Amino acid sequence: MNYQALSAAIKAKKSYLCVGLDTDLAKLPKHLLGDPDPVFAFNKAIIDATAEYAVAYKPNIAFYEAQGPRGWESLQKTLDYIPKDCFTIADAKRGDIGNTSGLYARAFFDKSAAGLDFDAITVSPYMGHDSVQPFLDYPGKWVILLALTSNAGSADFQRQLVDNETQELYETVIEKAQSWATHEQLMFVVGATQAEQIAHVRELAPRHFLLVPGVGAQGGSLEQVSKNGLTPDGGLLVNASRSILYASSGSDFAQAAAAEAKVMQQEMAGYL
Amino acid sequence: MNYQALSAAIKAKKSYLCVGLDTDLAKLPKHLLGDPDPVFAFNKAIIDATAEYAVAYKPNIAFYEAQGPRGWESLQKTLDYIPKDCFTIADAKRGDIGNTSGLYARAFFDKSAAGLDFDAITVSPYMGHDSVQPFLDYPGKWVILLALTSNAGSADFQRQLVDNETQELYETVIEKAQSWATHEQLMFVVGATQAEQIAHVRELAPRHFLLVPGVGAQGGSLEQVSKNGLTPDGGLLVNASRSILYASSGSDFAQAAAAEAKVMQQEMAGYL
Repeated sequence: MNYQALSAAIKAKKSYLCVGLDTDLAKLPKHLLGDPDPVFAFNKAIIDATAEYAVAYKPNIAFYEAQGPRGWESLQKTLDYIPKDCFTIADAKRGDIGNTSGLYARAFFDKSAAGLDFDAITVSPYMGHDSVQPFLDYPGKWVILLALTSNAGSADFQRQLVDNETQELYETVIEKAQSWATHEQLMFVVGATQAEQIAHVRELAPRHFLLVPGVGAQGGSLEQVSKNGLTPDGGLLVNASRSILYASSGSDFAQAAAAEAKVMQQEMAGYL
Repeated sequence: MNYQALSAAIKAKKSYLCVGLDTDLAKLPKHLLGDPDPVFAFNKAIIDATAEYAVAYKPNIAFYEAQGPRGWESLQKTLDYIPKDCFTIADAKRGDIGNTSGLYARAFFDKSAAGLDFDAITVSPYMGHDSVQPFLDYPGKWVILLALTSNAGSADFQRQLVDNETQELYETVIEKAQSWATHEQLMFVVGATQAEQIAHVRELAPRHFLLVPGVGAQGGSLEQVSKNGLTPDGGLLVNASRSILYASSGSDFAQAAAAEAKVMQQEMAGYL
């Protein structure tokens, strides 16, 4: 899905909600555990319940990988099930030397390799340009580069002053990466817990989409993120995972997820 | 495998060679392609041929992931086949917020989860302490933190001056991480192409093992790395992947790999 189509979807659905599929076997409603693939059964119900309110889905790859080959199969089925008018993100935080990043790109972008064809993948910038380029070499696919993350450890390195003390490392990441790709192939991760920085990131990268985790369970404010980050084209994908997936632990989990997603979508409609 | 056992293995085998299992289906000898699991058949032959000369094996996870569930099965079989007196490294370069890093740790360290129980995993430092800690929470397991990598892109961020211009980012990573874990649970990745920096890293981290990729296909010098990095306990794991795996593309690939590994081991014996 390209920039124009994503922007159009946001305007049509009046939503920039991304549902994070952090599907944890230990948290699934009991009645699903007898299913041959309880993770997929859960995801299917969540997708059916939330597709009206969400423009993107973001499976968190760790949750699938922790189940070995079976988890990989649940991931394939989940990705195939996501409606084609939704943007799909592999939250994988990969990044390695060129030939290895090329294989990660193949794993997540080329359906003939591992059965997956995500629109986008999250990538760590630590190894620099040649670790990111192989993902950008796939036409029509996106890199979502970690910039300023939502966790406390973001202070350890991302906020170190660099470049003659004039800016922080995450700002250097955002500036340099804009010479690698345009806003039509590159987004940045900025945590909602860093809402005061979002206005600043928006100055540094006026047109790039920002993927914003950390609303909900991690405590970020949707209002502040939206006021600081929205652009005329949308410009935001705000992710919620646990607050939607586990809104109820009972047999009504899908209705509860839909209600939670609807509340977020309606708040978003007000900001658009 | 703990620090003492790894040090003892290095002394017993007179080797600090790590064989990187970057097993690429496209590069396998033709006669293996009819095997039900050609990747495992290749790895098995490589392990048999090199175990006498190597103290560690490092499957590069991208190569397995790019084959989907089948690749994951080849990885499980390969790890099970590596002799128990060898150190095993998942070269995965993971790192995410705490609950997600916890799932990656489970995937690679807990055999009951995804069938894998590596001794160590490579981790990216970009997200800071709380993204690394979940791996350290597994007693007896190791984190190998990216510090100064072997690729050209290492100049983009790792070599930025930080901390009042007194040091580079990779030096800050090495210093901070030493407050997270001792040399008995933490190693650093330093590329062989950065041999002049290895002496400096050795000053910053006198007892920590360094995992050194980039000898061989990437052009680093084993002599310079060894002179700058060895400690009385060993202190180095020098990785070679393509130069060993693809020493011959014919039916003699395993003998050619053994010969290449032996040359490296004998050079290492001279430096120990």
